[in-house]
Amino acid sequence: MSAHATTHVAIDGDAIARALDALRARHPLTQCLTNIVVANWTANVLLAAGAAPAMVDNTHEAGLFAGIASGVLVNLGTPYEETTAAMDAAVAGAAQASVPWVLDPVAAGGLPWRTRTAQRLLRDSPPTILRGNASEILGVAGGTGGRGVDSADTTDAAADTATHLARQHGCVVAVSGPIDYLTDGEREVRIANGHPWMTLVTGVGCSLGALMAAFAAVVDDPLLAAAAATATLTVAAETAAAASHGPGSFAVALVDALAALTPAGLAERTRWA
Amino acid sequence: MSAHATTHVAIDGDAIARALDALRARHPLTQCLTNIVVANWTANVLLAAGAAPAMVDNTHEAGLFAGIASGVLVNLGTPYEETTAAMDAAVAGAAQASVPWVLDPVAAGGLPWRTRTAQRLLRDSPPTILRGNASEILGVAGGTGGRGVDSADTTDAAADTATHLARQHGCVVAVSGPIDYLTDGEREVRIANGHPWMTLVTGVGCSLGALMAAFAAVVDDPLLAAAAATATLTVAAETAAAASHGPGSFAVALVDALAALTPAGLAERTRWA
Amino acid sequence: MSAHATTHVAIDGDAIARALDALRARHPLTQCLTNIVVANWTANVLLAAGAAPAMVDNTHEAGLFAGIASGVLVNLGTPYEETTAAMDAAVAGAAQASVPWVLDPVAAGGLPWRTRTAQRLLRDSPPTILRGNASEILGVAGGTGGRGVDSADTTDAAADTATHLARQHGCVVAVSGPIDYLTDGEREVRIANGHPWMTLVTGVGCSLGALMAAFAAVVDDPLLAAAAATATLTVAAETAAAASHGPGSFAVALVDALAALTPAGLAERTRWA
Repeated sequence: MSAHATTHVAIDGDAIARALDALRARHPLTQCLTNIVVANWTANVLLAAGAAPAMVDNTHEAGLFAGIASGVLVNLGTPYEETTAAMDAAVAGAAQASVPWVLDPVAAGGLPWRTRTAQRLLRDSPPTILRGNASEILGVAGGTGGRGVDSADTTDAAADTATHLARQHGCVVAVSGPIDYLTDGEREVRIANGHPWMTLVTGVGCSLGALMAAFAAVVDDPLLAAAAATATLTVAAETAAAASHGPGSFAVALVDALAALTPAGLAERTRWA
Repeated sequence: MSAHATTHVAIDGDAIARALDALRARHPLTQCLTNIVVANWTANVLLAAGAAPAMVDNTHEAGLFAGIASGVLVNLGTPYEETTAAMDAAVAGAAQASVPWVLDPVAAGGLPWRTRTAQRLLRDSPPTILRGNASEILGVAGGTGGRGVDSADTTDAAADTATHLARQHGCVVAVSGPIDYLTDGEREVRIANGHPWMTLVTGVGCSLGALMAAFAAVVDDPLLAAAAATATLTVAAETAAAASHGPGSFAVALVDALAALTPAGLAERTRWA
Repeated sequence: MSAHATTHVAIDGDAIARALDALRARHPLTQCLTNIVVANWTANVLLAAGAAPAMVDNTHEAGLFAGIASGVLVNLGTPYEETTAAMDAAVAGAAQASVPWVLDPVAAGGLPWRTRTAQRLLRDSPPTILRGNASEILGVAGGTGGRGVDSADTTDAAADTATHLARQHGCVVAVSGPIDYLTDGEREVRIANGHPWMTLVTGVGCSLGALMAAFAAVVDDPLLAAAAATATLTVAAETAAAASHGPGSFAVALVDALAALTPAGLAERTRWA
């Protein structure tokens, strides 16, 4: 079924269904400091799922806004001087106000500047959830990473590293792949939904990080938030793939499927591996 | 039917149909200084409606280009140091060449830097049209605004403020919502088309501002331009919603519907409230 | 059929089919320094065609990454101080590592800063392929250009200029239009596929430049790379148009069609003019 821990409720179908209910009821204000490639897509995924996106990523406003947001995403896809400074401000603002935040170290490992940025953030002010593909998680931990946003490594190969990072930094680490692996260093969750077309649409992983920030705003357990976000996106992806003719129509149908997904359907269709 | 004024032709179905005809005939070059979330969407909406978008938002070219553009949009969705300086240059260039321009103060009220930027532009070099949702219009006028891009306030609540702003700055103020409220301080227009899915696709409001800049380039009366843009987008949205399964397919169908909308169909289907 | 040269294999249906096969087999890592309007679209087009996009456009990483990428695109659609400096670094990195790169001088001619940037790059470190519409190619060569991204000039009008530029800089010059004209200064290729809706979706031309960078990574002859990219996109556009109701659904169907296009279908359907 899924992992348990003495101090947390079970992470199971009922729990993620309640999380989706909470997302729909509370429309959490989710601040995204993300990249120019996926900003539009990310906002539309959040809206379809039930969250309220706000892309506030300038140095004048990012820190302040993180204090009033319900969740914050920091995504290193296309970092610039100004937006990276804004990320520092947002992380500080989130930490001060105890707002959950998600770090998505896109292409970490292969690219030195963003890798150092991710490592600095992780060390100085750990995120609630660290999310990436296997290469990115290995890259953040000091590996050489993949060739950009591709993952040349498998989820299994990153599981030990993920557990180590989770314990070291006291955060949840989420490794996406054909089987998604999520851990808080003690408990672990594996989810086996999804579709290969998810890798043919840019930003699907990035939008997963945004969904994690939104779910972390409405549930107390960050591992449950990561699991609910993962299940929501990957179950919707299966619905979308069945109604699509290729990656273009799949992306459109994925947004429709997110909006149509019911908590009961989510609980029923999530495959715990 | 609609509002009248002694010095203007009536703003009615015939007038907006002629405006759409003019847009299709002249393909006005519409410069957009807008945000990273909606730049792609905005360009596609303008192209589908019949305008020619050009996203020129750097400090080297923005002022010069505003002098040769037919209409200019300044949208404060994701302002940065450089693009905000470019907005200043574009507004100056537009003013010098008497090119109509639209100010969209995204999330004004809740976020101090952009609110001050909007207020400064409004005071020093008023736009032809100021466009926002109710919270943004109240925010520009000094209210505390909503929580980001959401509108927690109703159009009616903002109508008095809109009229006051229009008189104070000599511009048209357009407040979008289930019923769109448009005023130049003397006349007022209410349009009741649209669909709730418009709030589930990021940037629909932003693209409305861009359409207003395009229409302002082809008709002399800014209130008519704002009305024609509003009717065009909201009537097309009704066509799109009828052919869609959720917000993803709605966004795609909205672009199709804009391209297929005829002036006669626009005149017939616009609901004046 | 097509052009020949003593030192190159023929550019014909078989050659572009082999090029598409190679793209699918090797998934070339294609670095894009492009504009905020089309970054998402460009990434999705590359993914659908079979390439691996990576939008690395900051000054800290662009030069380094160009040395490990398989192909590089420099697109001047929305240049900023930082991204323009990153473009310089990427071009230097590509040159040093002999990585092919494509220059897309969006709106050159009408806008002075980007025109000078394009001319400087062309003079100091010529690209493998220079791609634009007729107005942009004339603009780079010193003409006054169109009014933004529109092409007011025809492909034929630019053919002589393209040949001159190709000889002067030792690169391929690709002029897109209803008939695409490609030359390396000696040989020339004309391709007559496509659909008018390609001009109603923002960034279709930009994504063609990205595809050229991807194909240049997998074939030795840059003229063949430009031809294969042009045929791939324009043949897919014909498939997409037949399944669409307007520019919105056309864009979605174009991504689907790119993913579904077979090398044999490409060879069969390309119309050499």
